[in-house]
Amino acid sequence: MNPSIVEAFEPLFYPKSLAIIGASAEPAKFGNIILRSIMEIGYRGKIYPVNPQGGVINGLKVYGSLHEIPGDLDFAILTVPAPTVRGTLEECLRRGVKGVEILTSGFKETGSPEGIRMEQELSRIANQGLRILGPNCFGIYCPESGLTILPGPNFSRETGPVGFLSQSGGLCADIGQIAKGLGIRFSKMVSYGNGCDVAACDLLEYFMVDGKTSIIAGYVEGLEDGPRFLRILKENRGKKPVILWKAGLTTTGSRAVMSHTGSLGGSSPVWTAAFKQAGVIQVHSAEELVDVIYAFIYLPPGAGPRVSVMGGGGAISVAASDSLERLGLSVPTFSPTVLEKLKTSFPPVGNSLKNPVDLGSPFIPPFQLRTVMEAAGEDQGIDTLIIIQILFYILFLGRHRLGMDDRPLSQFSSQPELLTVCQEVREKYGKAIILVLPDITTDARMVDLEMEWRRERDHYQAAGFAVFKTLDRAARALSHFIGYHRNRADHLSHETSTVKKRRRL
Amino acid sequence: MNPSIVEAFEPLFYPKSLAIIGASAEPAKFGNIILRSIMEIGYRGKIYPVNPQGGVINGLKVYGSLHEIPGDLDFAILTVPAPTVRGTLEECLRRGVKGVEILTSGFKETGSPEGIRMEQELSRIANQGLRILGPNCFGIYCPESGLTILPGPNFSRETGPVGFLSQSGGLCADIGQIAKGLGIRFSKMVSYGNGCDVAACDLLEYFMVDGKTSIIAGYVEGLEDGPRFLRILKENRGKKPVILWKAGLTTTGSRAVMSHTGSLGGSSPVWTAAFKQAGVIQVHSAEELVDVIYAFIYLPPGAGPRVSVMGGGGAISVAASDSLERLGLSVPTFSPTVLEKLKTSFPPVGNSLKNPVDLGSPFIPPFQLRTVMEAAGEDQGIDTLIIIQILFYILFLGRHRLGMDDRPLSQFSSQPELLTVCQEVREKYGKAIILVLPDITTDARMVDLEMEWRRERDHYQAAGFAVFKTLDRAARALSHFIGYHRNRADHLSHETSTVKKRRRL
Repeated sequence: MNPSIVEAFEPLFYPKSLAIIGASAEPAKFGNIILRSIMEIGYRGKIYPVNPQGGVINGLKVYGSLHEIPGDLDFAILTVPAPTVRGTLEECLRRGVKGVEILTSGFKETGSPEGIRMEQELSRIANQGLRILGPNCFGIYCPESGLTILPGPNFSRETGPVGFLSQSGGLCADIGQIAKGLGIRFSKMVSYGNGCDVAACDLLEYFMVDGKTSIIAGYVEGLEDGPRFLRILKENRGKKPVILWKAGLTTTGSRAVMSHTGSLGGSSPVWTAAFKQAGVIQVHSAEELVDVIYAFIYLPPGAGPRVSVMGGGGAISVAASDSLERLGLSVPTFSPTVLEKLKTSFPPVGNSLKNPVDLGSPFIPPFQLRTVMEAAGEDQGIDTLIIIQILFYILFLGRHRLGMDDRPLSQFSSQPELLTVCQEVREKYGKAIILVLPDITTDARMVDLEMEWRRERDHYQAAGFAVFKTLDRAARALSHFIGYHRNRADHLSHETSTVKKRRRL
Repeated sequence: MNPSIVEAFEPLFYPKSLAIIGASAEPAKFGNIILRSIMEIGYRGKIYPVNPQGGVINGLKVYGSLHEIPGDLDFAILTVPAPTVRGTLEECLRRGVKGVEILTSGFKETGSPEGIRMEQELSRIANQGLRILGPNCFGIYCPESGLTILPGPNFSRETGPVGFLSQSGGLCADIGQIAKGLGIRFSKMVSYGNGCDVAACDLLEYFMVDGKTSIIAGYVEGLEDGPRFLRILKENRGKKPVILWKAGLTTTGSRAVMSHTGSLGGSSPVWTAAFKQAGVIQVHSAEELVDVIYAFIYLPPGAGPRVSVMGGGGAISVAASDSLERLGLSVPTFSPTVLEKLKTSFPPVGNSLKNPVDLGSPFIPPFQLRTVMEAAGEDQGIDTLIIIQILFYILFLGRHRLGMDDRPLSQFSSQPELLTVCQEVREKYGKAIILVLPDITTDARMVDLEMEWRRERDHYQAAGFAVFKTLDRAARALSHFIGYHRNRADHLSHETSTVKKRRRL
């Protein structure tokens, strides 16, 4: 592993000062959006807007050129027109700038000979002592230093374990937004666009050694150097989890990749096999990508495949069994001892206790769920507990009962009590607990229930519990999580036995 | 087809009077919930609460027994304890009641000899001139007559084309709730539980001849008479679309079915093959079920597999291409003439116009989308237009620009203009238009954006456009919709040719 990559990327991720070249006073222009975004998210270094017209933008003095800026300059963000990018980069080199991000598009992705030629010039400059991100990208989000991507003033200011790389800036913007309410926090998120210099391979290498990153995730379309990419992934096997969405694997998708960042796609079976060999978790949509990252943040390593599912209303447990079994998980019947004990706490009618546990009604009091959770906790044949609660009914029924009075919904939800039960059961048995809270409100006049749903979710998340909206999504994320840990264990035991064999020789 | 089934079911779906036997003043009891629900949703016939204790419940006089009720009595809802159900049914028979629904559980689903025996007694009574729904069910929702299922006072009061049958009452409650904001309206929704008399086969036959039902959907676990079920489905082939979720197809799922309604599951490949042969659309989750019903409500029959996808931010178009192609749809390049014309309206840089069309930024003005939509409209190789707009950015940027002022978000959304564009393009070219509006807010403090999202969706729906939250879901629903129409066309052309052959002989 190359520790110098950390030093090389230091000016990109932790610049003490930065210039925005092409800064603008017009609110719709990139040169204004990026300036405001970085100011709003709370960048702690010095910001120097640069524009030959001078003046003041958003309260900051504008410099006519890089050379008027006093003191050291680590980093520059370029939003100048494509034909002037090369000259600006040369100026950056002369000024001693160590890293730049180029938001400007109009290079390789156009497919034109001129665009390709211009991009080759940028790559050449990168070899002269400057690391370049882009062009055609949205830049870097690094909450620790206060950097953010183009449309990202609204991202979380908290730092976290996820290192995220993406060819697409739009996807970064979406993922950062989706992540916010889910408590997924990033060490760095990097949109590298056409990747004329810094691209997937470098970023992967960086995240592997970055002390702030423990989960690596990303979206990749084409790759300039597939073999190097796979080599790095294999080196990482058994170390940090890597979750990748490799898009453009179909004929049309591959054609769209070409138009998007000018790189090449690839065939599906080849990538799937290579990812499997390298222990990479392969996903196929933004939703799946987020769900798997989420699982790595909230699930304990012991979350295993033998699941107890509990809830009320039978379709839930039948459907849950189907979903889990299709993904290679199991819903084993409780052991006879556990089942007999459980039966003493429930009436003989209106429920099914064998696992999946169907308590008959969606309105389940927390004390009843505790009894079932304790049983699943005690049963040696169960690794993971999935609790399905349609929060809507609890909230709606609460409101209904109280005759639509003015008290906030949270006053008559039974969820705070259930959270305590979850915490105590986790403490006692040390098993993984997952909440599935289906969200069935779609009505524009019932947004207050959605609000309450999000607040309840936040309480569970703050206590370290994963909350999914559907059982299918929970099962898929759990299955990926378990698959990763299995692959890792196989790899590590293989490594150990190889070392032992070598010692014997 | 049997028209007498319509008459037989008349007292269940359109009763002029009904008794709630086991009516209660306690708000948490079924006997109170069902009474309030039916009163609140606006049942127009006479309601007679029955309870030996007498008195007044929710302003209605309580009758001590069925025989004290004056005049005709069409229908009775039973919430009395399981051991007294048989006697109550016999009383209903004597009183001339034509239909009952039994909410009580504790019969076949317990798996006990006593439960099985009690349920057999109910079936026997059904043969004496009474149609029975249940036991262990949530009953009937029929907005036209003002009936609703157990926890359903909040369902829509509007009637519509969907006939829905489900073994699970909980699923009915969820689907009715989810459907509400999506503009999915029901002719009837029936939770039949254990199905001791009326079950999947009868309901299917009813929906096939019911003039108010044009789309049939349902959730089925086990089936008492699988061959009859398939025979009815095959009779219906080429007539009304049928969308079915057959659960309990895995080992554990099948075991859970047994506990839920005491019926038997079945093996997956057998059902899949049988459904295909009968032209039934098979789905595997509540989400997929709702999405396909939704497609049948909002998509025009001409929605075809050759799709033009347009949006901003390249990951969207690459991912869209992958998704569509995996589901057997295509994203063909625009014809050279259309493409050349389109190129004159856009700058040469920062977009990709070939289809999928990536306009580079998520903030796309409606006039630009109109240009692309007109191109897709003109292109003879395109059947269906999918427009991806991340509404969040439009709303968020609007708020951001206006400095968080107090004007409602709807004031600075560009969506009303885009809706007009969609309407005009649909009018001009007659092609299917689908909106994908990804919903990326998850933050509890941003529920106002969710509210605005739902309002925008409502505007599109009111104008007859389908709105999906993700491209994957839109693609899956479209693919099912096309598959159904293909199967139907094959079947009808086969029928025609068979008739011709017969004439020749």
